[in-house]
Amino acid sequence: MLAMPEIPLAPVDRIFKKAGAERVGEDAVQALRDILESIAYDLANRSIEMSKHANRKTITAEDVRAVVRIIRCVPLSV
Amino acid sequence: MLAMPEIPLAPVDRIFKKAGAERVGEDAVQALRDILESIAYDLANRSIEMSKHANRKTITAEDVRAVVRIIRCVPLSV
Repeated sequence: MLAMPEIPLAPVDRIFKKAGAERVGEDAVQALRDILESIAYDLANRSIEMSKHANRKTITAEDVRAVVRIIRCVPLSV
Repeated sequence: MLAMPEIPLAPVDRIFKKAGAERVGEDAVQALRDILESIAYDLANRSIEMSKHANRKTITAEDVRAVVRIIRCVPLSV
């Protein structure tokens, strides 16, 4: 993964707890955080493509939503 | 989306910038954050299933990685 992650671990840990996990290993929190980070870059890149397609320099929510509508499914890799 | 998001906006904004976006609307950052949050819950839920399948109460990185190997693609909805 990337050397310097952006997404903090604490929110990911809280999400696990809110999803109903009794005990969550720290490695699990890191693993999910790293996957989310990878997906974030993937979707950000595709959103940038979308805005270029619309001849805009500012990325908008419409660009992000258009990505979701078009790809429907984010590929994962471990 | 959920009423009380966990993932902060600032890391998502930095990811957009690192991905090469010149200008990013606040609505775009919120949209991507909300999508990541939704994916996080989805993967957390599936990871919990994985640990139950292995008769464990503690979620591990292996549970998270097994989810990724098995589903290969996270479905999205707007």
